[in-house]
Amino acid sequence: MTAPEAMIELWRGGMCESVHHGHAVIFGPEGIEAAWGDPETVIFPRSSVKMIQALPLLESGAAEAAGLTTCQLALSCASHSGARMHRAAVEDWLATLGMKDDDLRCGAHLPRDKAEKKHLICADGAPCQAHNNCSGKHAGFLTLNRYLGGGPDYIDIDHPVQRAVKSAFEEVTEESSPRYGIDGCSAPNFATSLAGLARAMQFFASAKPDGDLRARAAARLVDAMMEYPEMVAGEGRACTEIMREANGRVAVKTGAEGVYVAMLPDQKRGVALKITDGATRASEAAIIALLIRLGALDANAPVVHRRLTGPITNWRGLKTGELRRAAQFP
Amino acid sequence: MTAPEAMIELWRGGMCESVHHGHAVIFGPEGIEAAWGDPETVIFPRSSVKMIQALPLLESGAAEAAGLTTCQLALSCASHSGARMHRAAVEDWLATLGMKDDDLRCGAHLPRDKAEKKHLICADGAPCQAHNNCSGKHAGFLTLNRYLGGGPDYIDIDHPVQRAVKSAFEEVTEESSPRYGIDGCSAPNFATSLAGLARAMQFFASAKPDGDLRARAAARLVDAMMEYPEMVAGEGRACTEIMREANGRVAVKTGAEGVYVAMLPDQKRGVALKITDGATRASEAAIIALLIRLGALDANAPVVHRRLTGPITNWRGLKTGELRRAAQFP
Repeated sequence: MTAPEAMIELWRGGMCESVHHGHAVIFGPEGIEAAWGDPETVIFPRSSVKMIQALPLLESGAAEAAGLTTCQLALSCASHSGARMHRAAVEDWLATLGMKDDDLRCGAHLPRDKAEKKHLICADGAPCQAHNNCSGKHAGFLTLNRYLGGGPDYIDIDHPVQRAVKSAFEEVTEESSPRYGIDGCSAPNFATSLAGLARAMQFFASAKPDGDLRARAAARLVDAMMEYPEMVAGEGRACTEIMREANGRVAVKTGAEGVYVAMLPDQKRGVALKITDGATRASEAAIIALLIRLGALDANAPVVHRRLTGPITNWRGLKTGELRRAAQFP
Repeated sequence: MTAPEAMIELWRGGMCESVHHGHAVIFGPEGIEAAWGDPETVIFPRSSVKMIQALPLLESGAAEAAGLTTCQLALSCASHSGARMHRAAVEDWLATLGMKDDDLRCGAHLPRDKAEKKHLICADGAPCQAHNNCSGKHAGFLTLNRYLGGGPDYIDIDHPVQRAVKSAFEEVTEESSPRYGIDGCSAPNFATSLAGLARAMQFFASAKPDGDLRARAAARLVDAMMEYPEMVAGEGRACTEIMREANGRVAVKTGAEGVYVAMLPDQKRGVALKITDGATRASEAAIIALLIRLGALDANAPVVHRRLTGPITNWRGLKTGELRRAAQFP
């Protein structure tokens, strides 16, 4: 096993204060084109694979039967901020299914969105499950489940919904998943090698809208993410900012514990990375560095400045430090 | 240079999902007793050295002249939560100096304390500098500065206050600090080797209340931290919980970017550690593991369960994972 490589450093006072190591793979039409660390390292992809988890929703015919919109498909791939627009979109979606918040199994947490959080806190209100950053994925699970006629606990590992997800997951990663964990939203999260994850992202990147059933589903999801970047994350979030800036050149998705993936349709390339310590500041900076290398982001773009090359300032506006790409990355 | 060692792992679904590496030193009366990684690694100690930054306040006679209480001395070593009690204590302190919030140079940020944050957000109020987690340290700087008669910008590197801090810092670490960085609170933060930091903590741990001027100052600060653990951090915070649990056996202090220190008066030992990726969840778990090894914390204590050995649960209360000590640590 190859050791992870230094990817992102935090500098302060002329010295490297902290450093993040990771593994990364760029997967092209002919296979692995570049790798850092160990492509065979097995990871939990966490929320980075929501577009894979949404495949059965489309392939089954459930999405079409329910008349899901492109915006709803983007939301099914989201780790959203729980802003009013996200919550309302999920509530509307549940209503069209004849369902309610209690039918979700993701659990409730205070939203990241400041305005919505302030509204809840100052009204002494409790968040609902629609606020959960994964509620779009779960609305997708519920839509599929209604179509399949499964029981209410659609997040159980042997439920038809999760069996369909696992099957799709293993087919696009081209691996047998060795294990699963329980995610923050209570759904199973299937482990994969990083190469398998990058391979799956390459499949999504190269999927044609006039291809077979799976390709059509994958292409629609990639397009939906790029068309509604604000639904995939939210204002001020890295996924949203990167996709807006890239303007159709890439779809990206973050996952907890330092995972990030990218799908580049023009290049038919997929990217997957894992920061071994799980830090989001590093996974965001590292995917940006990789996307600059691949020409999908301009090195001078505001999102690059904000999340990688710009100064880190303190409460009085003084520069205290900066993130840097490690010498050999990428 | 010795590589950092695996210290804390995050496990999920039967697999190590993320891992944190670090350096650590246990320093006893005879020198280094145990080390992981590289004792000579140079770090920014960040807020872990507030008790060192407070030494000139006492040694100069400024604390006595201002009639500072034990509670205020604890606050001068604090990274507090900005709860009402912290803010009020700093405001009262400033008032006795005939000063106001504008005299601080730490900057304002929303407090971590939930009740105070809610109060501010729902009143559309702005935080003041007294809310800054470092405002107690800065009130100490102001107290010293009034005594020394320096200019208002007491955080400048060549200001008499910071010159006094640097001198004390180099004497207790027994090193010439190679550089400094600007901390989040705008004060200079002097770099040191981890061994130097642990040596300084050993000095504090062994300082006698009837010793020389510096020893008396150090002993008072250690006692103040242990007597007012809620002033050093706040409810629900690791430093406060550890010191309450240890009940006089140890004083501890966290620093940003994965630093933690401990002073064990009974054992005349000091501890210093740095998680190389800067993660606080790991520095908290690692210092707890070291304090269990040293007998200063009971392995079954609630704080140990909450921050190291207990399950990580999700929004529905399901266990999703757990932190673990790495195999060789500590």
